[in-house]
Amino acid sequence: MVGGGPAGLMASHLLHRAGIDTVVLDRRSVHEIETTHRAGILERDSVRLLTETGVYSGEGTERVLTEGDRHGGIFLRFGGRSHHVDFERLVGASVWLYPQTEVFSDLHRARTRDGGDLRYEVSDVQVHDVEGSPRVTYTGADGGAHEVSAEIVVGADGSRSACRNLVADHRRFTREYPFAWFGILCEAPKSAPELIYARSERGFALISQRTESVQRMYFQCDPTEDPGSWSEDRIWDELQTRLAGEDGFSLQEGPVIDRSVLPFRSFVQTPMRHGRLVLAGDAAHTVPPTGAKGLNLALADVRVLAEVVERALEKKDLDVLDEYTDRALARVWKAQHFSYWMTTMLHRAPGASDFDELRQLGELNSLVSSEAGSTYLAEGYTGWPTR
Amino acid sequence: MVGGGPAGLMASHLLHRAGIDTVVLDRRSVHEIETTHRAGILERDSVRLLTETGVYSGEGTERVLTEGDRHGGIFLRFGGRSHHVDFERLVGASVWLYPQTEVFSDLHRARTRDGGDLRYEVSDVQVHDVEGSPRVTYTGADGGAHEVSAEIVVGADGSRSACRNLVADHRRFTREYPFAWFGILCEAPKSAPELIYARSERGFALISQRTESVQRMYFQCDPTEDPGSWSEDRIWDELQTRLAGEDGFSLQEGPVIDRSVLPFRSFVQTPMRHGRLVLAGDAAHTVPPTGAKGLNLALADVRVLAEVVERALEKKDLDVLDEYTDRALARVWKAQHFSYWMTTMLHRAPGASDFDELRQLGELNSLVSSEAGSTYLAEGYTGWPTR
Repeated sequence: MVGGGPAGLMASHLLHRAGIDTVVLDRRSVHEIETTHRAGILERDSVRLLTETGVYSGEGTERVLTEGDRHGGIFLRFGGRSHHVDFERLVGASVWLYPQTEVFSDLHRARTRDGGDLRYEVSDVQVHDVEGSPRVTYTGADGGAHEVSAEIVVGADGSRSACRNLVADHRRFTREYPFAWFGILCEAPKSAPELIYARSERGFALISQRTESVQRMYFQCDPTEDPGSWSEDRIWDELQTRLAGEDGFSLQEGPVIDRSVLPFRSFVQTPMRHGRLVLAGDAAHTVPPTGAKGLNLALADVRVLAEVVERALEKKDLDVLDEYTDRALARVWKAQHFSYWMTTMLHRAPGASDFDELRQLGELNSLVSSEAGSTYLAEGYTGWPTR
Repeated sequence: MVGGGPAGLMASHLLHRAGIDTVVLDRRSVHEIETTHRAGILERDSVRLLTETGVYSGEGTERVLTEGDRHGGIFLRFGGRSHHVDFERLVGASVWLYPQTEVFSDLHRARTRDGGDLRYEVSDVQVHDVEGSPRVTYTGADGGAHEVSAEIVVGADGSRSACRNLVADHRRFTREYPFAWFGILCEAPKSAPELIYARSERGFALISQRTESVQRMYFQCDPTEDPGSWSEDRIWDELQTRLAGEDGFSLQEGPVIDRSVLPFRSFVQTPMRHGRLVLAGDAAHTVPPTGAKGLNLALADVRVLAEVVERALEKKDLDVLDEYTDRALARVWKAQHFSYWMTTMLHRAPGASDFDELRQLGELNSLVSSEAGSTYLAEGYTGWPTR
């Protein structure tokens, strides 16, 4: 298991339950992973993966359900007012606001509880001979040279994956976007019970939550924006302008305690398997953050991956792994489109004409006035069934 | 009534039924209009407008229903096979294949039957004083100078409208597309019972029908393409390649009897009313042909227009006309988005990356595998309710 983030740990957890031993390697420290703010929306099936596979067994509480916040929908805000897309009513599903750092902590606790072999703060990780008898060499936290032999190597080493370079004859597909997100954490009460995806003439904004007293917000910015150069007043002016309306909505302000610019990129590598190496999550694909698909795709990968690895080892037949790429990528391309759709529907493209602006409003009006259109969005947001 | 195409004639017909006299002026001859091939798909409400307002009264047959072809859906073709979008099942509605030239003929016959004052082959049409007491001057087919006074002037003079320039303080919104359609008429049997919208790596193609023995087909081309430079073999090679698959579909060929390159443009002017002038159809907006919204939007305009003009004249209150622009444009912008969506989902943009191609397939796969997504498309294709 190269990579000890949520994807690597969930793969390790699921394989452990199937009686398969794993070793997890990661360059980062547990503290570093636990304090890096990432996305926070879990699809229905991502929540199920946590609650139905014994992650919380013995804890007396399923933290994702007790600490997480169930969201029955989202708000699309445009033309000065918010339109609720009611996932519960439309597709009978919810999503859960539960930060990725918490998912990591829960999985880390579960693996530790179950005696998992987790090796953080390692360096010089190198994967050898994935076409034959794989070995992984690395320098331990103790400075010593180590080697692990494995039947299967899972490359879950994130968006700067080294493992993916080991896939011979790969193809890569990318799309760059001409904007980024300016993200802040602030000490303020909640402005709304669910996420607000806002489209304005000045561009996109997203009002999210974290806790009762700390909120997460984003607004579309230039990819070269320097977050340090913005005063708090300027940040709030920008957010207030993009959320302005005539419906009495009030955006709650407070001290900004964290800020960063998040890059925007679509990336897919295929195949996701080569010999005894399988890729999962960001190592194989990244999506723009609109629609919150990143972590959910990683967990969906792992669900399929654990199943095919278990079957391949049980049958001693590597050909079983052949189906992994197609099954995982079918979902990935749907998610790439969904993320692209949510992005283009709500962001202002640099140089967008007045026609483009009004067509975008035409789409949003079509969508919120159509039960079918809203349902189609709700299906994508809450997640497609795994195949 | 400046313009005697389907929009102008339908406006004249509806106003006649409300007891309002109209004069219809058009530069073209009836023969010219009757022989210019245009779109051929009528939304459900466009058919109703023909059948429920007495267009066929006394004829013993409603030609749109007896001569037209009811289509309960369309095929989306990609990845080598066709996917049926079943409008009847999804939204309980059909569309009708009935060429615009037939709609014109039916309306022309109805207006003639009802003693309508139709003046074709006029020239030098000029509209005066739309803010006060409108007059329209023109040179008649006889060469004489004429003048018509009117309480209301309807500008239904098409995509090169002169009337729209009379709207003071107008705004115009346009979008150019980097491709066009190469359209042919050919003598061949039908290849399919309903329209096939095909996406291929070489770009879009559309297989439509006209009669049992004459078919209409289109394929995406460069806007500067010279239709005369293509041999019939080359045309059929291109169409066959774009329709190729592994499902046994067979595209029927035959002699090409007409060919042209259709321009692609989105255009909207607002407001659609100024003083005693109201615009309808192409004079106020054009859409790209994908999705067949052009004629349907014109008829939807006229439905609203006739209602507000009747009310304005009855109450002798021009302020009633104020609502026309907003009511008409709400639909126009939905249709602009729908046409843009159908276009971008199925056409190959010049310079499209491999990522774009696969994302497009991801969208098509999402759409046909989602009941809600397919329903959303069916709603747009069969037409939204008029407000």
